[in-house]
Amino acid sequence: MKTVQNYNEVDMKRKVFQILVENTSGVLSRISGLFSRRGYSIESITCGDTADKAVSRVTIVASGDDEILDQIEKQLAKLVDVVDIRELKPDESVYRELALIKVKAETSERVGLITLANTFRANVIDVSNHGVIVEITGNSGKINAFIDLISGYEILEIARTGIAGLRRGTDGVVSPKIR
Amino acid sequence: MKTVQNYNEVDMKRKVFQILVENTSGVLSRISGLFSRRGYSIESITCGDTADKAVSRVTIVASGDDEILDQIEKQLAKLVDVVDIRELKPDESVYRELALIKVKAETSERVGLITLANTFRANVIDVSNHGVIVEITGNSGKINAFIDLISGYEILEIARTGIAGLRRGTDGVVSPKIR
Repeated sequence: MKTVQNYNEVDMKRKVFQILVENTSGVLSRISGLFSRRGYSIESITCGDTADKAVSRVTIVASGDDEILDQIEKQLAKLVDVVDIRELKPDESVYRELALIKVKAETSERVGLITLANTFRANVIDVSNHGVIVEITGNSGKINAFIDLISGYEILEIARTGIAGLRRGTDGVVSPKIR
Repeated sequence: MKTVQNYNEVDMKRKVFQILVENTSGVLSRISGLFSRRGYSIESITCGDTADKAVSRVTIVASGDDEILDQIEKQLAKLVDVVDIRELKPDESVYRELALIKVKAETSERVGLITLANTFRANVIDVSNHGVIVEITGNSGKINAFIDLISGYEILEIARTGIAGLRRGTDGVVSPKIR
């Protein structure tokens, strides 16, 4: 989801933040409220349980110039529920998103569509008389490329999760200690 | 993410809602704010672009008794940004979630772990000296079962997206017309 903002497109960057938060009522509301109140641009947000029931992990993709991205990190770090925040740098991290795409496809069109899906290691998870649902995972670029590729078909619905990410390797793992 | 609430565990149910929203600044904040203000329990929320740039799709898993779930649906429908809301019933829908799981595994333990991952059609997407990152997709039950299964290993980090869902078949597709 995007927020309208007056920044110079040239200086615009994108950063992925992993945020460990106390699993309290309202933490998601406080995080998303911070973005909307200040007009920060949030491209994607996902959240889920961690191995520790008291802690959830939020992955945010934010965009803006260097100064705005700096502010976002500092403001998020100030929220009382936030236990830890750090950037997931592209060259040190894996990002994955999941999308479900419902495509109109009569029997005669299905083989072509399924072949394209196989090329992207996507799975057909539902077939009905007039369409199929394809499940695809990858980074956002791969998913966008797949959607572009099948644009000759009529896309009926898309449900995307937004990205989840982890730092590669086993260094720098954050033990989520509630402060 | 869970919200503490005083309801009778026996009457507790879970519903999945698909919500089409105008892609405006603050819509996510208004949705999550509604849940936290009223003490509704939100188990999972995901959001992403649809084929129409003006519209985003939000998938929410909410829990509570029948009355609370009814209230949640009605209150969400009242939000100005909400174009359409409907329940994704389990027997008519597909739900999928993605999880990245970082597991501590020395060389000698890796084969066993990779075999387990293969059984669940999970992919190993990063291998380092002391661990691996596994990517798994499925419904939340499958992902929880996999996490249980590998609990003999030391799980270092988990990043989950929360679920995205679509109704099976091609009937009842909502054309997201902004009102």
